[in-house]
Amino acid sequence: MRIEELGEFGLIGALSRLLPSGEGVVKGIGDDAAVVGGGKRGRYLLIAADSIAEGVHFRSRVSGRRVGRKALAVNLSDIAAMGGVPLWAVVSLGLPAGRSVEYCREIYRGLAELSGEYSLSVVGGDTFRSPGGAMISVTVVGEVEKSRCVLRSGARPGDVICVTGTLGGPPREKHLNFTPRLREARLLGEFGPPTAMIDISDGLFADLAHICRASGVGAVIGEDSLPVPGPVRRRGTAAVLRTAGRGEEFELLACLPPLSAEVLCRELPAELTTPLTPIGRIVADPSRLELIDRRGAPRPFPDTGYRHFGVGPTQGIE
Amino acid sequence: MRIEELGEFGLIGALSRLLPSGEGVVKGIGDDAAVVGGGKRGRYLLIAADSIAEGVHFRSRVSGRRVGRKALAVNLSDIAAMGGVPLWAVVSLGLPAGRSVEYCREIYRGLAELSGEYSLSVVGGDTFRSPGGAMISVTVVGEVEKSRCVLRSGARPGDVICVTGTLGGPPREKHLNFTPRLREARLLGEFGPPTAMIDISDGLFADLAHICRASGVGAVIGEDSLPVPGPVRRRGTAAVLRTAGRGEEFELLACLPPLSAEVLCRELPAELTTPLTPIGRIVADPSRLELIDRRGAPRPFPDTGYRHFGVGPTQGIE
Repeated sequence: MRIEELGEFGLIGALSRLLPSGEGVVKGIGDDAAVVGGGKRGRYLLIAADSIAEGVHFRSRVSGRRVGRKALAVNLSDIAAMGGVPLWAVVSLGLPAGRSVEYCREIYRGLAELSGEYSLSVVGGDTFRSPGGAMISVTVVGEVEKSRCVLRSGARPGDVICVTGTLGGPPREKHLNFTPRLREARLLGEFGPPTAMIDISDGLFADLAHICRASGVGAVIGEDSLPVPGPVRRRGTAAVLRTAGRGEEFELLACLPPLSAEVLCRELPAELTTPLTPIGRIVADPSRLELIDRRGAPRPFPDTGYRHFGVGPTQGIE
Repeated sequence: MRIEELGEFGLIGALSRLLPSGEGVVKGIGDDAAVVGGGKRGRYLLIAADSIAEGVHFRSRVSGRRVGRKALAVNLSDIAAMGGVPLWAVVSLGLPAGRSVEYCREIYRGLAELSGEYSLSVVGGDTFRSPGGAMISVTVVGEVEKSRCVLRSGARPGDVICVTGTLGGPPREKHLNFTPRLREARLLGEFGPPTAMIDISDGLFADLAHICRASGVGAVIGEDSLPVPGPVRRRGTAAVLRTAGRGEEFELLACLPPLSAEVLCRELPAELTTPLTPIGRIVADPSRLELIDRRGAPRPFPDTGYRHFGVGPTQGIE
């Protein structure tokens, strides 16, 4: 069987069974970041790793600076999804022969600018000759108070499903320029904390399905609640679902107890000017992944997420 | 300027200046692993990241299992060079479309086998479509007692320069099959600890030069002391230097106070059956990087190391 037939999730499932899970591992493969002991008293360490490749996650004409920024930002988004704080990053940079030193410098400038914004340090890494295009693998190590660590697996029936920011906007831009929702995640942790959280990298419907699978629950969301731009809403249901469901939005999808949700949907915009929108509810039946459209009719979640090895929608490359 | 003109070390130097060094960073870019605060009481965390790519560090016909093993082993060698213990690893695996699922499984089997030997856990990572060949970036997080953490920068005049194991042996095999010197490093830490240490990835002469530059010292080593196989020695000086100087040997190069060196050159073979050979001395003059050949004549270090972006010797691919 070839890898594109199995897909990334099938592949990860097949591979993770091969790996023994050791001591001190709170959560290994299968969440936005690994959670391990070994940190300071009362805290867990978080380890997130993500890669981006030229021609797959970004086009060749994108500036090195934006490439460097994105490579780090996707990892910060993963740390945010755990409720944590990023501390250190290491960077593996693969470059084809003939690439200019200025291009590398620009990549590091992008890394440095974003790491400066969040007070984390790029502490090491390596460079190597890539047989294909440029590619960057970044690993971020962070920490989180044990009481504020949020996994995908804690969602409970009755929780309100909330999403930060707006889904959609210029697709050629957002996947390069997005702001990792670290500050928002910390505020959610203070007032909440959420029972489950994930960052939207595969698409709203796919990522909500990840939470439901990990938590053993279902979800019902309303088309009219989805935070998409007005012009998209006016184009009708298909446009709303396509826009809301696309990958690489890097907003946070959080499940919150009703009282926390009420407070936070008011406080988050007030404190950080970031909208937090309730879009639905967690339900007990794990087979129910339902969207109520604008006519009030239920339908199953559309399948519109990011395909890692397939030939389907590849938002990142637009 | 193109990257192959600047070379990896020039590139790293140019890039590291762009990165602000933050709080809690004991040693950032420029050693075998980064050393940071944030671990358990009395210990530092270590973070090592290294990548290998098909056609650059391994040939396409090499089995996935050996590729997975090597990708982890090079990082364990880096943790060893700091005197530390590896705890967790994350793996970014880039695969071209069309690669078989069995090949990926084999890679993970190689990772699992080696991680089992050293009781570390592979806790996460990602898979992505690579536009070129297969490539794997591994990051290992480990820890080390503060008193046993060994940097490159502590070598002092009078220290004895020692090397573990034998340099040389079948080049097509060693870079895939080597044993990371983790146990040896821990024993050195108990009796020593070394004043400076590095793993031999760029080549003995290049890596010793890294230690000397970081420590502000020089080194004098003897051709007759180099632990190369007998048949190589009989072929003469040129063969000895070529063999001893090649990259990807992954032995440890340690600087030790004379008394520690004497004890350890006896104890290491006794405890672990790994030879530890004194090959020379650290000297005060940083401009002196000297080899005394078998006729007793001094000569500068040969330039025979691994070139990351160049077209010179590329041991790893043989």
